[in-house]
Amino acid sequence: MNETIKKALIGIVGEKNFTDNLIDLVSYSYDASEHRHRPDCGVWVETAEQISEIMKLANSHLVPVIPRGGATGLTGMAVAAKGGIILDLNHMNRIVKISIEDRLAVVQPGVVYADLEEALNEHGFFFPPDPASGKVSTLGGNVATNAGGVKGAKYGTTRDYVLGLQVVLPDGRIMRTGSQTMKSVSGYDLTRLFVGSEGTLGVVTEITLKVNPKTTATSTAIATFDDIENAGCAVSQIMHSGIIPSVLEILGYDAITAINQNTDLRLPEVDAILLAETDGYTEDETKYQMQKVIEVFKKNHASHIKEAETAEEAAELWSARKSAYGVCARIKTNFVLEDVTVPMSKIAELLKGIKDIARKHDLMIATYGHAGDGNLHPQILFDGYDSDQVARQKAASADLFKLAIELGGTLTGEHGIGLQKAPYMELEHDPVAMEMMRRLKKMFDPNNILNPGKMALEMEHGSQIRF
Amino acid sequence: MNETIKKALIGIVGEKNFTDNLIDLVSYSYDASEHRHRPDCGVWVETAEQISEIMKLANSHLVPVIPRGGATGLTGMAVAAKGGIILDLNHMNRIVKISIEDRLAVVQPGVVYADLEEALNEHGFFFPPDPASGKVSTLGGNVATNAGGVKGAKYGTTRDYVLGLQVVLPDGRIMRTGSQTMKSVSGYDLTRLFVGSEGTLGVVTEITLKVNPKTTATSTAIATFDDIENAGCAVSQIMHSGIIPSVLEILGYDAITAINQNTDLRLPEVDAILLAETDGYTEDETKYQMQKVIEVFKKNHASHIKEAETAEEAAELWSARKSAYGVCARIKTNFVLEDVTVPMSKIAELLKGIKDIARKHDLMIATYGHAGDGNLHPQILFDGYDSDQVARQKAASADLFKLAIELGGTLTGEHGIGLQKAPYMELEHDPVAMEMMRRLKKMFDPNNILNPGKMALEMEHGSQIRF
Repeated sequence: MNETIKKALIGIVGEKNFTDNLIDLVSYSYDASEHRHRPDCGVWVETAEQISEIMKLANSHLVPVIPRGGATGLTGMAVAAKGGIILDLNHMNRIVKISIEDRLAVVQPGVVYADLEEALNEHGFFFPPDPASGKVSTLGGNVATNAGGVKGAKYGTTRDYVLGLQVVLPDGRIMRTGSQTMKSVSGYDLTRLFVGSEGTLGVVTEITLKVNPKTTATSTAIATFDDIENAGCAVSQIMHSGIIPSVLEILGYDAITAINQNTDLRLPEVDAILLAETDGYTEDETKYQMQKVIEVFKKNHASHIKEAETAEEAAELWSARKSAYGVCARIKTNFVLEDVTVPMSKIAELLKGIKDIARKHDLMIATYGHAGDGNLHPQILFDGYDSDQVARQKAASADLFKLAIELGGTLTGEHGIGLQKAPYMELEHDPVAMEMMRRLKKMFDPNNILNPGKMALEMEHGSQIRF
Repeated sequence: MNETIKKALIGIVGEKNFTDNLIDLVSYSYDASEHRHRPDCGVWVETAEQISEIMKLANSHLVPVIPRGGATGLTGMAVAAKGGIILDLNHMNRIVKISIEDRLAVVQPGVVYADLEEALNEHGFFFPPDPASGKVSTLGGNVATNAGGVKGAKYGTTRDYVLGLQVVLPDGRIMRTGSQTMKSVSGYDLTRLFVGSEGTLGVVTEITLKVNPKTTATSTAIATFDDIENAGCAVSQIMHSGIIPSVLEILGYDAITAINQNTDLRLPEVDAILLAETDGYTEDETKYQMQKVIEVFKKNHASHIKEAETAEEAAELWSARKSAYGVCARIKTNFVLEDVTVPMSKIAELLKGIKDIARKHDLMIATYGHAGDGNLHPQILFDGYDSDQVARQKAASADLFKLAIELGGTLTGEHGIGLQKAPYMELEHDPVAMEMMRRLKKMFDPNNILNPGKMALEMEHGSQIRF
């Protein structure tokens, strides 16, 4: 680390909030993906003003700055692809305001999702996106990646709840976007330009979120299917039932057997399990909706259907789904968790295609995910010390992306692009859209200081992987 | 109209789809606002390719192009502030696809909102934003202004339902944004940059919308209040009830008396009426929620509460609210309909402030609107032939905007900025946000060809009205 920059950083954040200690830099070199890049230093920041000073410094010395929250991202979004300064936002963890009358919460970016949940819960409210990483991921990261979760089909993703932001721009200027109202159409939607921008356009320093009152009743059921394609058909027919389940999750055979080998849940070892939840305020309402869901399951040859009679039974049904990521992650030394998303009518084809890809590349792919909004999580397991397996994993991911796009889908429903999917951006977006994204980056960050190397923003058109 | 341009336009759209007939130009010179500007010509377009050719032509001759749908806008958004070519999109009125399994509809921009509603209704689905102009306004216009309506509090606005777009950029290039999936976080959110951009960044030629299954049960009630501030308090306490009514509308005294003078509805002539609706699939559910709403009404001294027993009774309660705009519009020769929006806890203060502003400027202001999301419609009535009244209306609007911003609100919840509120943009947005909006405009439309003069995008900072 250049001594001038180091001194200037210490001048801004103080000695105790600066590190270039090797252990810290190694810790900062990874997120939940396979990508590893060591930064030059890290700083713990506490105010927008400090961040503003750091951005000015970084711009004058052309040093990259990488905003970092819980670093639970699955695409390398928070790693220092080109070195530079890790801007650690975890100390900016204050819930600034919860105003139930105004239906909103104002938070700093380092607030952990679960901490906001706890605070809202006291008022009978919640913030719906519910990412699986919610116990550790921060709201700044949720905004950066437009986080989603199990309730996406009915309640949407982070984007649908961000009303306004305070942002430090790459040149150090501080800006407010959006408003504190439920509705506004005053000027361009700068707010949503930052949601999902993966820390490449500005550093979010305050977030105003719309929050929801909690429903007070739920019904939960699981259905088993001897053929995963039938489960896929059930998913795509749900919309014809006239209701939107609050949850519709899928677990494929490989995920089910992995769960059984690692827990004592003793799931039926079928080709697929669907887990459904309906919600509302009265039992009548949730049961009415669940009946509609169950009719669709039956019509699609579910082999067994079980409705939870009690909250404990529902919790048991949930534990299978919730353990999937963890148990599958332990099977091999390495894994890549994808999040391809397709129109719901294509879920069965996607499920079939994933099976074919696993067979073709001789890899175990455990599939589960948020079937209700077309978002699957094929978890590709491999041995990272075996270069042949690594190559096969990469080829399988590429096939998976191609398949998703062919089915009218998207590379990523909720994890973002980061480094992981940057080579595939042109598969999804036309040259004009790619150019406009690159020009937006250039407009906000002409020196490419902020989180460089992500989202294929620096490439010339046509320099991407071709198929 | 320059003959070279005229010939070129006829070459693109054909003789019968070009007009510079005076009657047509006068028709094109207005929307639902007070603003009048006559264009040089109008063209009816049918394809994105034609629009692309027109944009190239306009750019090479530096002629403004103004996209136009139903022209029901209330801010002068669709009038030719600087002359030029009206791009009439009403012939692009095809519903391209409705896919219930995928929960989406793909439409051309000239499709009338009500026509999509009718098509969706056959499947038991609807597109929730429900603007009051829905019988005539087009979906392209709904996207341009991020239209909202009576169900905003529970179901959000147009922005929450637009999944993807096809757009012709000012330089004539055609781009696709977003995807056909429920969820995507692949690159910057170009889609929502166009939603609410008032036709200043590109011409939307195809829209992919998320749609919702219809609920099958509703409860409806009205409550009267002898003091409008009590009604405001009831609105702001609704969130403490733990439910979100699907509708929560307000009618103030001046609106009520105007309705009584022009219809035979015989409303109680109180200071305010609230109309609430709750929805779901079962009667239990809607009644449970309505009970919560009624408790809040009672706690806030409602003088009378009436629940609808039948669908006919509910329709009767609705007709009062629905007639407000029309009957108030007839009282004086002219009116301006504002749509200031504040955090819900500030509704009572806003209502009180509107009364004060009416008194101060000696004007009748009929107030009604979507109280449930903080969005009020003060309708300022005046005689446009009386220059003193015109001046007082302008002063009252300015006071209203200042008040809304002081209360932490926004200039516009759903009508947009257009010409009407352009002078007030800097009241709401800080200099950095204003600069970024102006730079976005410049990036997409360097020659300022597309709908120029709107949203204060051309001004230098500080050139706006100061307070």
